[in-house]
Amino acid sequence: MRTSSMLEQLMEALRCLPGVGPKSAQRMAFHLLQRNRKGGLQLAEALSQAMTEIGHCDQCRTFTEQDTCHVCTNPKRQANGQICVVETPADIAAIEATGQYSGRYFVLMGHLSPLDGIGPSDIGLDLLDYRLSIGDVEEVILATNPTVEGEATAHYIAQLCKAHGVNASRIAHGVPMGGELELVDGTTLSHSLLGRQKL
Amino acid sequence: MRTSSMLEQLMEALRCLPGVGPKSAQRMAFHLLQRNRKGGLQLAEALSQAMTEIGHCDQCRTFTEQDTCHVCTNPKRQANGQICVVETPADIAAIEATGQYSGRYFVLMGHLSPLDGIGPSDIGLDLLDYRLSIGDVEEVILATNPTVEGEATAHYIAQLCKAHGVNASRIAHGVPMGGELELVDGTTLSHSLLGRQKL
Repeated sequence: MRTSSMLEQLMEALRCLPGVGPKSAQRMAFHLLQRNRKGGLQLAEALSQAMTEIGHCDQCRTFTEQDTCHVCTNPKRQANGQICVVETPADIAAIEATGQYSGRYFVLMGHLSPLDGIGPSDIGLDLLDYRLSIGDVEEVILATNPTVEGEATAHYIAQLCKAHGVNASRIAHGVPMGGELELVDGTTLSHSLLGRQKL
Repeated sequence: MRTSSMLEQLMEALRCLPGVGPKSAQRMAFHLLQRNRKGGLQLAEALSQAMTEIGHCDQCRTFTEQDTCHVCTNPKRQANGQICVVETPADIAAIEATGQYSGRYFVLMGHLSPLDGIGPSDIGLDLLDYRLSIGDVEEVILATNPTVEGEATAHYIAQLCKAHGVNASRIAHGVPMGGELELVDGTTLSHSLLGRQKL
């Protein structure tokens, strides 16, 4: 279909968003043009600002437009000697949403993956090493994903903590709340049995 | 969750897209920041250009950044005396994709809806009236949606055509291709019986 070339460019550009195919892109473009041009312009503004100005926190590597993010600069968070290691900034959002954690974070922006050429320095472990060496960290909570790579990464960081004499812990894996036992997969069930706690 | 305020603004802005809720917006924002900043900037550029520069064709009211769209300026399309009336520019895309139609279009950008205060002039029927009065139109194909409003709009335009002595036709409604008869709803089946054609 040949249409307005500017419209085609917009549809093509919208496909850079995850989960957006040709049909969704068309729907989005027409929706914005017909019903929400102001919203479209605001989105353009927010996008160009975010893409150029958002960098990484120099302490925890999460996304922020400042040098250091608001979590790392928070004195209460600093007083708590915990650092929670996660793979992505989205994981921080998930943990913050629980309201259960009041320490600082460290974002790997990935996981160790030697086959893809991703080594310790690519996921910022040199920076973590430096932070552990300062001596204000009491516990490192390893909240990487329960995948092969995530487990390997957690194991590697646990060794790093040991070298610095810092306690390392791994988040619990087991039966998710609200789930039915018979529907839970075997590996998860094994983890929940091995990780049982005394009442 | 308190995060980078620029990131929050981006997530909020992304929600102007249809079908994008808080979770998708977060996923999109992180995806662009982590993996495709260049794509994000291109999207920002395409959006701001499209939102400010795309207007309506002065002949058929579809979206275009020129005064008259490429379909209306095409001499072959002009020679064909047909005008297909559709509700939205997306309908043009669908009809063009079939490759079965080689006439011009007229986009209502909606349908008659007296309860919502949408009258004939709001859907450009004054412009259509003018185009019919010129005398180069032989047939008006009514391809509005098969809804109550779409049918009413088609009926209204058919009257307009009659007043100008121009033939009006309605696209066929019936059993969709590849469907199973037993699964087709009653109204559609009635239409397919009433609209039967001699072999």
